[in-house]
Amino acid sequence: MEIPYKIYLEESELPTQWYNVRADMKNKPAPLLNPANGEPAGLDMLSAVFCRELAEQELDNDTAYIDIPEEIQSFYKMYRPSPLVRAYCLEKALGTPAKIYYKFEGNNTSGSHKLNSAIAQAFYAKKQGLKGVTTETGAGQWGTALSMACAYFGLDCKVYMVKVSYEQKPFRREVMRTYGANVTPSPSETTEVGRKILAEFPGTTGSLGCAISEAVEVALHTEGYRYVLGSVLNQVLLHQSVIGLESMAACDKYDIKPDIIIGCAGGGSNLGGLISPFMGRKLRGEADYRFIAVEPASCPSLTRGKFAYDFCDTGKVCPLAKMYTLGSGFIPSPNHAGGLRYHGMSSIISQLYDDGLMEARSCEQTSVFDAAQQFARIEGILPAPESSHAIRVAIDEAMRCKETGEEKTILFGLTGTGYFDMVAYQKYNDGEMTDYIPTDEDIAKSLAALPDVR
Amino acid sequence: MEIPYKIYLEESELPTQWYNVRADMKNKPAPLLNPANGEPAGLDMLSAVFCRELAEQELDNDTAYIDIPEEIQSFYKMYRPSPLVRAYCLEKALGTPAKIYYKFEGNNTSGSHKLNSAIAQAFYAKKQGLKGVTTETGAGQWGTALSMACAYFGLDCKVYMVKVSYEQKPFRREVMRTYGANVTPSPSETTEVGRKILAEFPGTTGSLGCAISEAVEVALHTEGYRYVLGSVLNQVLLHQSVIGLESMAACDKYDIKPDIIIGCAGGGSNLGGLISPFMGRKLRGEADYRFIAVEPASCPSLTRGKFAYDFCDTGKVCPLAKMYTLGSGFIPSPNHAGGLRYHGMSSIISQLYDDGLMEARSCEQTSVFDAAQQFARIEGILPAPESSHAIRVAIDEAMRCKETGEEKTILFGLTGTGYFDMVAYQKYNDGEMTDYIPTDEDIAKSLAALPDVR
Repeated sequence: MEIPYKIYLEESELPTQWYNVRADMKNKPAPLLNPANGEPAGLDMLSAVFCRELAEQELDNDTAYIDIPEEIQSFYKMYRPSPLVRAYCLEKALGTPAKIYYKFEGNNTSGSHKLNSAIAQAFYAKKQGLKGVTTETGAGQWGTALSMACAYFGLDCKVYMVKVSYEQKPFRREVMRTYGANVTPSPSETTEVGRKILAEFPGTTGSLGCAISEAVEVALHTEGYRYVLGSVLNQVLLHQSVIGLESMAACDKYDIKPDIIIGCAGGGSNLGGLISPFMGRKLRGEADYRFIAVEPASCPSLTRGKFAYDFCDTGKVCPLAKMYTLGSGFIPSPNHAGGLRYHGMSSIISQLYDDGLMEARSCEQTSVFDAAQQFARIEGILPAPESSHAIRVAIDEAMRCKETGEEKTILFGLTGTGYFDMVAYQKYNDGEMTDYIPTDEDIAKSLAALPDVR
Repeated sequence: MEIPYKIYLEESELPTQWYNVRADMKNKPAPLLNPANGEPAGLDMLSAVFCRELAEQELDNDTAYIDIPEEIQSFYKMYRPSPLVRAYCLEKALGTPAKIYYKFEGNNTSGSHKLNSAIAQAFYAKKQGLKGVTTETGAGQWGTALSMACAYFGLDCKVYMVKVSYEQKPFRREVMRTYGANVTPSPSETTEVGRKILAEFPGTTGSLGCAISEAVEVALHTEGYRYVLGSVLNQVLLHQSVIGLESMAACDKYDIKPDIIIGCAGGGSNLGGLISPFMGRKLRGEADYRFIAVEPASCPSLTRGKFAYDFCDTGKVCPLAKMYTLGSGFIPSPNHAGGLRYHGMSSIISQLYDDGLMEARSCEQTSVFDAAQQFARIEGILPAPESSHAIRVAIDEAMRCKETGEEKTILFGLTGTGYFDMVAYQKYNDGEMTDYIPTDEDIAKSLAALPDVR
């Protein structure tokens, strides 16, 4: 059968349920722990921070398929299905016998896959009768996605944006404001933790860890508000499974059998979403695939971190998660672009990796932008720096096929576009981009501060 | 039949020929004239500036269907078909009985429909064995599209970017550089006309008219180069007919019968492309439609200009075109955003309008951004300011249907996204956007300088 350049599923073929890979995992991801007493965080504790139904999803290790509410399906139809694209032009340019496909999640105004979970979290907040939600954003994709979702459901949206991004990415900020969000540079005078940090470090430009702490504080102390998070959590991977389910349906429809499935990995939400249903088949013994998580060499949690309980935020107010981590005090080199700068990794991805069910690889920034530029020129899409990590490894694998003559089928996740990342592209275009790989001492130092659990 | 949210044609349903509306026009658009002697510009004169096949297309008033070369069809498949979207959510929010559809051309890295003609013009340049092309860009969408097209075919691309945009839109510039284009702020020291203007006005931030003159000069004086233009020309409307052909195929497939077809109008390329095949049916007496061109109140060439021969560029080096014009010296208020700031209008659109086959309407900037924000929040797409002119009138017409109870079907062109227009959105968000409508004296003054032709 001839494969079109872009496969769009019909509306009748779209997923109506999310897939929860935990149901098929033999070793379940470890539970979140209450930092105060080391006990597993239960529904009551989680419901104080998250919407109740989301807290239930967070804890549900057993239900394989969960219905996607109709309201969310309607919203999905405005920007989904995303296309599964056959990279004919890239294959030709590389001269590889490999077949390359990518699932492109960038064709929506948030510019990435983040919208898949944002709309779900906003829906459950609305359903619970809440007035609004709080969150933090660094690069701004998550904040934009949540602003769009809240505008749709008429919810207030308070975004704490890391101050350096607030100042350096005014356009991202304006997109969020256009969608009606209240955007505050963090640290701010609006929270106790913000005032404390400002008093201690008056000139600080903020950090994601601090912004999380501010957003959580506001959610806990404002009637009718809850906190939402765009990655790492089990619930987020559940919502993102729509990426993998659509990919799998498109592959099955055209009899495409991926050998290698590749995704970039920061907190793990896009990767987890893409691979989940394929991993389910592998866990059930129905098919086999190689899965490759790609992370930046500057923030290598899977490839050089430790599998242990750690704080999710620098402020240490959130529950502890068992994950591959570099230590919550780890700070990636500031000249490195992208949204993959998280010290930890989704507990689900961490467990699957620890069980030997998937691989991980790290890439240096300059080689990632080499791949980004090549891809942009050949396939016509300007990729986000994060997504370009997956492109790098997809090209590497395709070139390996060229050497060996193998006709492997490669599928990778192209999570988003780079329109708001032109400062990084400019550095690359000007030949001023540098690479930084943390030393073993750097990592050992931040790992030394892991909390003492059990 | 139930209409999906988004209609994507199958690859087998995509147009393989462009449609040339001139073939069905009783009154043909007036020919371009040689400014030196007032004689119609023939193939030889046009071939010195444009690629030969494009010059032939420019002059062809008779051939109704022209084959789209296979190489261009392949490139189209990377980002086309664009979706025809049913605006279910907008209809619901407005409470209108009208059915609203939009053809969305923003899902490619250039961010607009401009790529449809850029790839065609680059293809013919490559086919002719040229080394490269030159062009000018203001807002940057055309320059980006051409850079992408040239990267694909391995052509050099020299872009003269209006200096004020070069400085204020560094991200646009970097996208072009990422695609390998050579971007020069205009006026520059690289051309005679640039040096002359810089000597006369040392602090000037440039203008589109000056950038055109520089790009044309370089094309004329560099071996193996030609000049390309992103709007206004007959050839560009021909290439853009792919928008209308896809729209018509999708409408026919689902038995959608538009009553009103709306597009924003700067040089007229998107509007002309969208309406061409529908206009063809109207011209042949097969169907009837209302067509509405929407222009900014700050630059109202159709609604307040004169139908006359005028210069296409401020430097007066290009052929004269008969068109609705405000005079080539007309300068729209600088605080007005968008790519609709051209003093003239496509000769085809001008003729159709003069023949009473279509309507025109002008909108003020603030009301356009009201519509943009409303659309963004409801339909999830952040529209370009240009495109938002069409949204404004589509909403107005839908609200009229609400008053009268008529169930009209409205189709409008959503030409692009506003990711690089956040400075304008910021002004709007901050309540600092203003409107400006030129006085009759302003317009009379620039019209007084029309060239004396026949």
